[in-house]
Amino acid sequence: MSRIVMKFGGTSVADLARIRHAARHVQREVKAGNQIAVVVSAMAGVTNQLVEWCNEASPLHEAREYDAVVSTGEQVSAGLLAIVLQDMGISARSFTGWQVPITTTERHGAARITDVESADLDKRLSDGQVCVITGFQGISPSGRITTLGRGGSDTSAVALAAAVEADRCDIYTDVDGGYTTDPRIAPKAQRLSRISFEEMLELASLGAKVLQTRSVELAMAKGVRLAVRSSFDDPQGPQTAPDGSNSGVPGTLVCDEDEIMEKQIVSGVTLVKSEAKITIRSVKDRPGVAASVFGALAEQQIVVDMIVQNVSDDGRQTDITFTVPDSEYEKAMAAVRGNGERFEYASISGAKGCAKISVVGVGMRSHAGVASSMFSALAEKGINIQLITTSEIKTSVLIDEEYAELAVRALHTYYGLDKEED
Amino acid sequence: MSRIVMKFGGTSVADLARIRHAARHVQREVKAGNQIAVVVSAMAGVTNQLVEWCNEASPLHEAREYDAVVSTGEQVSAGLLAIVLQDMGISARSFTGWQVPITTTERHGAARITDVESADLDKRLSDGQVCVITGFQGISPSGRITTLGRGGSDTSAVALAAAVEADRCDIYTDVDGGYTTDPRIAPKAQRLSRISFEEMLELASLGAKVLQTRSVELAMAKGVRLAVRSSFDDPQGPQTAPDGSNSGVPGTLVCDEDEIMEKQIVSGVTLVKSEAKITIRSVKDRPGVAASVFGALAEQQIVVDMIVQNVSDDGRQTDITFTVPDSEYEKAMAAVRGNGERFEYASISGAKGCAKISVVGVGMRSHAGVASSMFSALAEKGINIQLITTSEIKTSVLIDEEYAELAVRALHTYYGLDKEED
Repeated sequence: MSRIVMKFGGTSVADLARIRHAARHVQREVKAGNQIAVVVSAMAGVTNQLVEWCNEASPLHEAREYDAVVSTGEQVSAGLLAIVLQDMGISARSFTGWQVPITTTERHGAARITDVESADLDKRLSDGQVCVITGFQGISPSGRITTLGRGGSDTSAVALAAAVEADRCDIYTDVDGGYTTDPRIAPKAQRLSRISFEEMLELASLGAKVLQTRSVELAMAKGVRLAVRSSFDDPQGPQTAPDGSNSGVPGTLVCDEDEIMEKQIVSGVTLVKSEAKITIRSVKDRPGVAASVFGALAEQQIVVDMIVQNVSDDGRQTDITFTVPDSEYEKAMAAVRGNGERFEYASISGAKGCAKISVVGVGMRSHAGVASSMFSALAEKGINIQLITTSEIKTSVLIDEEYAELAVRALHTYYGLDKEED
Repeated sequence: MSRIVMKFGGTSVADLARIRHAARHVQREVKAGNQIAVVVSAMAGVTNQLVEWCNEASPLHEAREYDAVVSTGEQVSAGLLAIVLQDMGISARSFTGWQVPITTTERHGAARITDVESADLDKRLSDGQVCVITGFQGISPSGRITTLGRGGSDTSAVALAAAVEADRCDIYTDVDGGYTTDPRIAPKAQRLSRISFEEMLELASLGAKVLQTRSVELAMAKGVRLAVRSSFDDPQGPQTAPDGSNSGVPGTLVCDEDEIMEKQIVSGVTLVKSEAKITIRSVKDRPGVAASVFGALAEQQIVVDMIVQNVSDDGRQTDITFTVPDSEYEKAMAAVRGNGERFEYASISGAKGCAKISVVGVGMRSHAGVASSMFSALAEKGINIQLITTSEIKTSVLIDEEYAELAVRALHTYYGLDKEED
C-alpha cells in the first residue's frame, strides 16, 4: 500500500472523455490498494477564456479579481472528476484551495504556498476516500483566493505530497517522461527511467519543459519522489517501465541522487537555438562594471542567458560576452551602446544564429574530463566552439546554429545515450 | 444618501458589453452618493453549460459536487464586474458566498439561507466600497459550497438587503417591472408603479414570473422594499418613473401595503392556459377522502392547481373537481381511476382546453362584491364560468380556453386598469 498524489494537467482533463480516462488511472491505483489524492488543472482552454474575459474587462485588471475569476477553472474540473469517480463507485470528494486550506502569500497571480493543512486530508486518505484538489490556487492570510501562476498545479501537487507524506507524486501529462534529448532531433533518444532532481532542474531550465522548475525545486527541498507519466497510456495496460528498469513506475522517476544506482556521467543533451552573442571588448576593469553592463539590459527587460567574462590580461581591461535570444539582439545592442557613460570600452561586436548545446549529469561531479571530452567530440565533427560555460553538473557551449542537430546527435552517441536498435 | 442592493440577472451580465452596461447603472447610484452592494447571477448560458457537464459526468451526480461546479458561474461574473467597476475608478471588490459568509442549510442544490454575516460588508459599504457578491450560493455548516436552486439570486439579494439594512433592493432584469396583465394579450396593460408583497406573490405564482416567489416571501418577512427595474434602460437616462408616480424609482416597487396610498381594488389580471379539469362525482363523503384522491395524484408527481369540493347535499356524498396541466390529463385520469379501492365514487368526467383567469388585489379585503362583479363582467361577454375559487386577495375562475384573451381584456377594462390613450 502506498500513498500517491496524482496530478492531471489541462490536456488530461480537456473534456468529459479525457476526465473519464484520467478517472480510470485513479481507479487502477485505488484497486491496487493505494491511498490517492488527485490534483487537477482546469480543462484545456478554459483558463485562456477566463484570462481573455479579464483582459476584456480591463487590460489593467486587479490581480485579486483576476485570481477570483481564473481560479474557477480548477473548481469545475475537480468537481467533475469527483462526480465521475463516484459514478465508478469510488468514494471521492473535491476540495478547493481554500477548503483544504492551502495557504499562500498575498502575491496574487504569482503566490507561493506557505502551508498546507493536512489533518483532514490525512484522515480521509487513511479512510480510503479519494481527495480531488484544485491545483494552481490557495487562500491568502486575508481570505482572498490566490493563484500560483501558470504551471502552478505541478507545485500544488508536490506541496500536497509533502504535506500528506505521500510515497510518490505522479505528474500525468501529454508526454511519457523525460528524455535524454529531443527525439525529434536525435531519433535514438531514450526515455530516462530515473533522473536526479538536480539534473531535472538543469534539463527543465534548458528547455526540456516536462515539469515546472518550481515544482522540481520544491520536490528536491521536501524530498518528494516525482514521476512524470503519460495520461494518454491505457490506464488498465501494463504499468511497468517498458525499458525493464527497476523504477517501479512507467515514465520517468525524478528522485534523490542516492536512489539512482548506476549513475550516467551524462544524463542528457539539451539544445537552445536562435541565440545571439554580443561581445564588448576592452572594457575598463573596475568594480561594478558587470553590474553596469547588465543593469542596462535589465532596464530594457532583456533576459540574458550565458555570460562569460575572462580574467583581464593586464588587470586593467577585460572582454565580456553574453547571449540573448535572436529576437532581442538589436534591442540589446542599442542598450549596451547607449550606456557609454556608465562604462568605457573599445568596441562592441555580435552575431545572431548561434545555438547553445549543454550536457547534464550528476556523474560529472566525480568524473574528470567530461568537458574536455565534449570538446573533443565536437572537434571530431569539425564544429567550432565559440563560448564555454560550466556549472557543477552541466557544461554548455555556444556553436554555429547550422551544426546544432549534428552536435546533439554526436554528443548523444558519444556519451552512450543512444537506445539499442530494435 | 441611501443604501441599495442592486441585483443583475444572467441576461444583464451575459457578456462583457452587458457587464459594462450594468456597471454604468452602479456608477449612477454611486455618483448619487448611495452605498451600493451588487448581487450577480452567472453570465447567461454559463450555468447551463456547467449543468450539462455535470449530467455528462454522471446523470446521478452528487448534489455537493454539482454545487461546487455550478457555483463557479457567479464567481466569474462577480470578479469581472468588480474589474469593470475598478476600471471606472470605483472602489469595488468581489465576494463569494463563503467569503461573506452567507450560511445556508446543508440541502445542496436547494439550500435555504440561514445567516448573512454583515459586519465586514457594513463597514465597507459605509467606507464607500461597492461590494459585488455572488448570488445563488452560500456555504453549509460543514464548509461545502451550496446553491439555492434556480432563481436563487433574487433571494440572495433580498437576504443581503435585510442583513445590511438596505433602504431598497433593486432587481434589474429584462423587463421593466410588473404589469397589470400580459401586454401581449391586453395592449392596454400598464406597468404597476407600486404593488404590495401579497399581490406580487399572487401574481408571481399565477404566472407573471418577474420575481422568484421565495424572494418576495423573504422580502415581505424581512420588510425589504423591492424594486423590479430594467437593466436595458439607459443607465444615464431619466430615472424617475415614467408614469409620474411618487414611487421614487422607475420600474415597479414591491412594498408594504401601508406604503401604497390609493389602493386599487384589483391590481392585476392573470391568465393560465392549457388547464384540464377532472370531476369525480358522488364521492362517498368520509374523513380522508380528499387525501386519498390527491395522494394518488401526488404519487404520480402530478401538480394539481385548483381544487373545489362542495358541501355534500345529503351529508353522504360529494363532488370533487380539480385542474391539472393539459399535458398531465391522461395520467391524472388513470391515477384517479386506478384508485377505486381507496375511495368510492359514481363517475369521473373531465375535459382539456380550459383557462384560469384570476383577479388579484389587496383592495378586495375591504371591498365587498368584487367576485360578483367579476362574474357579471364575464356574463356580459357571454362567457360561462365552470369553476370558482377564492382567497383573501384573489378570485379565480375556470373558463373555456377560447374565451381566455377576451376575458382578460374585459376584466382589465372593467376594473379600470387600462392605460390612457397616448
